[in-house]
Amino acid sequence: MKAETIAINGITLIDGTDAKPLENASILIEDGKFVRIEESPVERFEADTVIDGRGKYAMPGLMDANVHLTDGLSLTNNFGGIEYLARYEGRLKEICEEAAQLALKYGTTTVFDTGNAYRPIIGARDAINAGKVVGSRIYAAGAIIGQSGPFTRDFMVDARTRATKRFADRIDALWEWPGLGGELLLMDIEQVADRVQQHVETDIDLAKVFVTDHLVSSFQNSTAYLQFSERVLERIFSIVQGAGLKLVTHTSSIESLNTVVELGADVMVHHNVTQQVPMPDSLIEKVAAYRGWGAPQPTTNRFQHGMEAIGHGWARYGGGAHRYNLERLIEAGANLCLATDACESDTDRLADFSPEELQDRPWDLGRGSVYWLRAMVETGMSSHQALRGGTRDVAIAYGVDDKLGTVEVGKIADILVLDADPIADVGNVARLNTVIKDGGIIDTAALPDNPVATVDGIFD
Amino acid sequence: MKAETIAINGITLIDGTDAKPLENASILIEDGKFVRIEESPVERFEADTVIDGRGKYAMPGLMDANVHLTDGLSLTNNFGGIEYLARYEGRLKEICEEAAQLALKYGTTTVFDTGNAYRPIIGARDAINAGKVVGSRIYAAGAIIGQSGPFTRDFMVDARTRATKRFADRIDALWEWPGLGGELLLMDIEQVADRVQQHVETDIDLAKVFVTDHLVSSFQNSTAYLQFSERVLERIFSIVQGAGLKLVTHTSSIESLNTVVELGADVMVHHNVTQQVPMPDSLIEKVAAYRGWGAPQPTTNRFQHGMEAIGHGWARYGGGAHRYNLERLIEAGANLCLATDACESDTDRLADFSPEELQDRPWDLGRGSVYWLRAMVETGMSSHQALRGGTRDVAIAYGVDDKLGTVEVGKIADILVLDADPIADVGNVARLNTVIKDGGIIDTAALPDNPVATVDGIFD
Amino acid sequence: MKAETIAINGITLIDGTDAKPLENASILIEDGKFVRIEESPVERFEADTVIDGRGKYAMPGLMDANVHLTDGLSLTNNFGGIEYLARYEGRLKEICEEAAQLALKYGTTTVFDTGNAYRPIIGARDAINAGKVVGSRIYAAGAIIGQSGPFTRDFMVDARTRATKRFADRIDALWEWPGLGGELLLMDIEQVADRVQQHVETDIDLAKVFVTDHLVSSFQNSTAYLQFSERVLERIFSIVQGAGLKLVTHTSSIESLNTVVELGADVMVHHNVTQQVPMPDSLIEKVAAYRGWGAPQPTTNRFQHGMEAIGHGWARYGGGAHRYNLERLIEAGANLCLATDACESDTDRLADFSPEELQDRPWDLGRGSVYWLRAMVETGMSSHQALRGGTRDVAIAYGVDDKLGTVEVGKIADILVLDADPIADVGNVARLNTVIKDGGIIDTAALPDNPVATVDGIFD
Amino acid sequence: MKAETIAINGITLIDGTDAKPLENASILIEDGKFVRIEESPVERFEADTVIDGRGKYAMPGLMDANVHLTDGLSLTNNFGGIEYLARYEGRLKEICEEAAQLALKYGTTTVFDTGNAYRPIIGARDAINAGKVVGSRIYAAGAIIGQSGPFTRDFMVDARTRATKRFADRIDALWEWPGLGGELLLMDIEQVADRVQQHVETDIDLAKVFVTDHLVSSFQNSTAYLQFSERVLERIFSIVQGAGLKLVTHTSSIESLNTVVELGADVMVHHNVTQQVPMPDSLIEKVAAYRGWGAPQPTTNRFQHGMEAIGHGWARYGGGAHRYNLERLIEAGANLCLATDACESDTDRLADFSPEELQDRPWDLGRGSVYWLRAMVETGMSSHQALRGGTRDVAIAYGVDDKLGTVEVGKIADILVLDADPIADVGNVARLNTVIKDGGIIDTAALPDNPVATVDGIFD
Repeated sequence: MKAETIAINGITLIDGTDAKPLENASILIEDGKFVRIEESPVERFEADTVIDGRGKYAMPGLMDANVHLTDGLSLTNNFGGIEYLARYEGRLKEICEEAAQLALKYGTTTVFDTGNAYRPIIGARDAINAGKVVGSRIYAAGAIIGQSGPFTRDFMVDARTRATKRFADRIDALWEWPGLGGELLLMDIEQVADRVQQHVETDIDLAKVFVTDHLVSSFQNSTAYLQFSERVLERIFSIVQGAGLKLVTHTSSIESLNTVVELGADVMVHHNVTQQVPMPDSLIEKVAAYRGWGAPQPTTNRFQHGMEAIGHGWARYGGGAHRYNLERLIEAGANLCLATDACESDTDRLADFSPEELQDRPWDLGRGSVYWLRAMVETGMSSHQALRGGTRDVAIAYGVDDKLGTVEVGKIADILVLDADPIADVGNVARLNTVIKDGGIIDTAALPDNPVATVDGIFD
Repeated sequence: MKAETIAINGITLIDGTDAKPLENASILIEDGKFVRIEESPVERFEADTVIDGRGKYAMPGLMDANVHLTDGLSLTNNFGGIEYLARYEGRLKEICEEAAQLALKYGTTTVFDTGNAYRPIIGARDAINAGKVVGSRIYAAGAIIGQSGPFTRDFMVDARTRATKRFADRIDALWEWPGLGGELLLMDIEQVADRVQQHVETDIDLAKVFVTDHLVSSFQNSTAYLQFSERVLERIFSIVQGAGLKLVTHTSSIESLNTVVELGADVMVHHNVTQQVPMPDSLIEKVAAYRGWGAPQPTTNRFQHGMEAIGHGWARYGGGAHRYNLERLIEAGANLCLATDACESDTDRLADFSPEELQDRPWDLGRGSVYWLRAMVETGMSSHQALRGGTRDVAIAYGVDDKLGTVEVGKIADILVLDADPIADVGNVARLNTVIKDGGIIDTAALPDNPVATVDGIFD
Repeated sequence: MKAETIAINGITLIDGTDAKPLENASILIEDGKFVRIEESPVERFEADTVIDGRGKYAMPGLMDANVHLTDGLSLTNNFGGIEYLARYEGRLKEICEEAAQLALKYGTTTVFDTGNAYRPIIGARDAINAGKVVGSRIYAAGAIIGQSGPFTRDFMVDARTRATKRFADRIDALWEWPGLGGELLLMDIEQVADRVQQHVETDIDLAKVFVTDHLVSSFQNSTAYLQFSERVLERIFSIVQGAGLKLVTHTSSIESLNTVVELGADVMVHHNVTQQVPMPDSLIEKVAAYRGWGAPQPTTNRFQHGMEAIGHGWARYGGGAHRYNLERLIEAGANLCLATDACESDTDRLADFSPEELQDRPWDLGRGSVYWLRAMVETGMSSHQALRGGTRDVAIAYGVDDKLGTVEVGKIADILVLDADPIADVGNVARLNTVIKDGGIIDTAALPDNPVATVDGIFD
Repeated sequence: MKAETIAINGITLIDGTDAKPLENASILIEDGKFVRIEESPVERFEADTVIDGRGKYAMPGLMDANVHLTDGLSLTNNFGGIEYLARYEGRLKEICEEAAQLALKYGTTTVFDTGNAYRPIIGARDAINAGKVVGSRIYAAGAIIGQSGPFTRDFMVDARTRATKRFADRIDALWEWPGLGGELLLMDIEQVADRVQQHVETDIDLAKVFVTDHLVSSFQNSTAYLQFSERVLERIFSIVQGAGLKLVTHTSSIESLNTVVELGADVMVHHNVTQQVPMPDSLIEKVAAYRGWGAPQPTTNRFQHGMEAIGHGWARYGGGAHRYNLERLIEAGANLCLATDACESDTDRLADFSPEELQDRPWDLGRGSVYWLRAMVETGMSSHQALRGGTRDVAIAYGVDDKLGTVEVGKIADILVLDADPIADVGNVARLNTVIKDGGIIDTAALPDNPVATVDGIFD
């Protein structure tokens, strides 16, 4: 699949840095890396494959700071969760691979899976990284510290009353491995430390903590209980960061956000979500001054209007104070990078959505990255900022900017060729012409190449 | 699989008729039929396969007047139903075949599936009858007249709140095909007649009607609403019986039983179940004098004591007035034949049962037939009566006694060889030595040969 | 309260018969009865009280064939039922009296309570009939044959999980007395007959049977199971009608309606409600030719539009096939009389209703009678027919037309004086000037005079 | 009611201090206080009322550090809560008074109501303190900081689906007044501080904080989420204690207990309850060394065995690690005082309890104090320690030991006369002969003198 050398000649390059676009640039890719980038070159590069970039635009492959490559949506409410898990148990690694292919198909070349069943996600990551399977590059957190499995209050609160115990136990164990579930909330600090130590010693790439609760099906996301005391959190942070891993936090209130800023979180997922309480100015300033990265999840105006028009609960997610928080964070210059919380829903689940739910659905794996860019521009960012937020900034947030996130000589050759200018209209990132990952052209039309959840079955 | 000829020499034969056991009998089987049966023969039969029957006992293959070859149990309550359907959707024909193999493994050579999804059960029936798949001979009713699918009040009342609509619709349509669900209760009599006519014109072998409701998950089986008016029932009976099919009824009260006796039902499933109301003497007499067959579902003392000891809801099923009704029906000489309502639960479901629930479980596909025999003897039948009830009487009830149900020359060669005397102890039917069906020896140890629900998965 | 004699002079009289309005009529009332009615009299009547009827309109007091003088609404769903029963237990007779006063306040001088807790409703009836309490004249059915209490599947299906057992048992017993609950469905026909016999021997005025189920909170009124077999129904009808009582039926399907017409029901409550299945022409004709009375519950266009606009479940009640059935019954000339199924909701319950729910609410005790008149005219009746349906026809249906229902000499003096012409616009019945019941002028402004559920409490 | 002077002569006095019992003591009470206490006096005291104490035992009136004088039990689960609130709304002050009378009837002369609807409890407190109503002396916390009302996740999670909104809103506002509900968890620290400041400026006597969640009906008390961050808690503590009020904490995990010890809680309710996680030794030591008071809620062996025999969820409350924690706290010499969490259930609620639930029920208002004493002796305390824990130590914990808690000259005359020796058997505190409160003899037989919830109604 990987061409030996690729040249892209005469293209307008937005390289992901603060630099302004290079018009008439030529790029040479060898051995999976950018080896030469020339501004207005007298002569074009030769290569095994030559792409005529005239009238086209190049930018780094998109990076998503927060995905879950199984169907988190089905797990986080009671609609379809048991069905989903029973249907795909035993094929979850394939599901993760299929999801990584959906991401790649729409231009996201790197994803950070911040919480998933360890075995399937690590299996998929390794298969892709080893080149056995095509897909978006995966960095994986495995299980989340302090998150119980699908058949618990953290996901589907009473699903156990509808499933066999053995199945539910098996699934919960898979999702909590190596023992990171809710029992940590009741444990002695030393026991918690032992579990987290065990976790960071596995081959995960990052670690995530549930700072506030995840009672999504019990109380419609309206709560923000704290899961850990400050001294326990400090200990967890210290173990994770001491092991050289980036620490991702889940918060859902202004007070919990304040705490994780105090404690030094690296990536703060949906930190603009504060149960509709506007952040006080002092907190906006504190976050804006902070070195860590927010990974907010805005909604496009079109999606938001759709939700409000049909009185949908999702209107609460990206609207009201949550949007207001984000507007002020942008204005204050806070660190903000692309994150969608996207996941892969199967065809049965998707068939249940209304047109309003489907339009610019923020959790749409793949297309969601572009919705993020558009939503951020609608919320106050410039196109340039948004594009940087969706590429270089994710790389910085996770400490992989030495090799990913920009189109610069020496970096890994993840690059998108677009048919229209993303600076003029950031939505043009959807006008994908070519996706190159690791220096190879991806046959996006062929993805997913082993359909599992995207297949429309004929059953008897 | 089928030996060309089989001889069983010197065996004690209980032939399924009213005749007393033939000691020292020899039996010759050719082309799937009994061709010679000799009493105390001077010389033994020669054959491709010769079985030395000395010290052994032979009886007709068991016949079960009421099974459901998918997991009716999971469907009729909320524990595990969604999981079961999601896990096995697309493999339901295989499930039915596996279930038919479990029945055969334990000596039941013919089963009457009185209600199931049409396509899988007919598919399995045809595969077995064509000799493509080993298994108990299946006679199938397809869907039940007036029964809605799994995702309705007739089974799992609120399961739709936990599943995708598309999945639930697909499953319900499968189970109600060709449109026999609860909408019939609201229709005009002519519309009902049209639907039933359409049903009997398919290739079903028998037909079943829900005379009373099946609100099993809403009200713990405590209700007995009538589904159809008397004139609508008359019309249904007339269409079914006019098409030459036997009509099976589901009743759950003394009044509904009275009605179906008046209307001329052929097989009355669990007619002893009357919401714990004892049948009045007049009803006992009426049923005893009636030509149709009751297909009661007794429980063994051991099972009953277990249920009562742990205060289990199942204690209500076979105990109290339901047992008292049955004792009086036996005493009054009513027609009663073997029926278990058995189904095939998967390994996850079975793992959830307590030891008390598993012991002599009446709905245990295969073993359940012997529990029926034991339970009926405990309730007042002689061994001889019970054995006839489990063989010949089922054949008479369904009008197939010209070819099945007894060991007589000219009949299909379904025969069990036992290591101990079933007249002395009817439980000895469990001491199976050899199962012969259609004149072939069954390799029971190899069954099920394509395990689906009985497999214990290793998952990732 | 009762004036010795009352004269109404010079009024336009719609007397409730088929006669056309008498212009310039004078009416003399003595001892609670109409004693003289003169057409265009030369001289006016003298009396203790003389009403100048010039420019005004007189009509008989309205009669409602179907009310429940406690809050049936709260009982039939889970919103507020436990609260209502706990708050008013011990004061239910007062509630019934208050409700009868609300009816009277808006011109309904006679109500038929077709189902209620026996003791409170009979207590209220007797207090009003004895003149101890002002209120609409009550005819009462007591409990309904085959209806279980509020804490059962017939009303609030799982309310027992939220209440103490002693309270729930006490309330259920009150509502089912003398033992008419769902256990009848399981009983032997002779036992059912005994219970019904016991019931008709109490001092009830009429009797009602649940022919179809009342599973209102389990399945959103979508079911129509039959409660009794035809022979049991025949027996019930025979006992009730044999005791000289009118028999009222609750049906909810075309087949159950056909049955009660066959069996000879006197009053058929909401017989147009057929689970949205249009009645076949043959049934329309059969009902139109039938001597018994339908008591349909139409909705006004305004209410119906409101319900449809907000997607309310109540839209199903009076719309679609239910309205179409009614249009055809009117066109076919079927017997149809006023019935509202109205009940008295308390102030907390009313505060929960949306504006759409409150506007022309068909179950509004008192005002609901006028909504019925308007709705029937909108559905196809003439004003004259509708007025007759709300007065004389109810009296005929219940066999009390010898004394009630029309303004004729010798009848009980229940009469309304209106400020505008109800023939021109039937809604003018709401323009009440004076209500006279039993020959006495009612101080409607003072009603209810002992507020219980209509009071707006101040609590600590 | 109050005798002018009372003398108790020749009694054995356990005075509530560390002193050993005074045999043959005489006590003189005047103006509500102890004025003379003589050891082995030559002559007995004269008084308006003279009690012959020979063969009897005197001890201080019992004090209960944790009660709720309405029915917390009904509120904290879904059984009976709506019913209770609807039945008694408008009479809650009377309920509190009745409850205080039940406490007094069984010898508890002072109760600390640590959480209740403000208006009723303060009303009852003031009525009793002003001498208008007899009853146990009440110190009241009003609402709990961070606790939402009965119709919320903190009590009856889905009760709003069964009640009118107006009623539920009214009740919740009553319980949360002046705005201390769950919204505090989402607020900015300054807003929280404002609310708490407003609270301490009312006329409450103490204040309580929910440090961990109260999700009692959602998750069967299995959770221990933190409600407030450490800095918010510090601020709350500072405001409460700065206002001179004692601060009471609700914790339910070892980590939350550690936090409140660090922050300086005064009274730690049920601090032995740690979701069945045994306290680490370091925590036992820390608590034992701490100046604040634990108010544990042990169960008697008899109650515990009953709960375990019937597999009752309450077995979890006082058994396993919770008892083990308590044994070790006693052994380590931790401060421990009497607290029952008792409340007043009504007759309907009590009728629902099984015999096992009623026997030594720890939450039995009145009798529960003696069950506490017995349970603590069974868990390792001496009788002497337990008696001190139930009298003097509560006074110390709440800083009222200058006037209450011991039988010493100058203190308020709350004293119990017993017929048997409580040192020999602490259960003898139940053998009450005379209760004196504020220097007056209480007619315990007449209590409650205005029965509300204890009345057994006759209803129609």
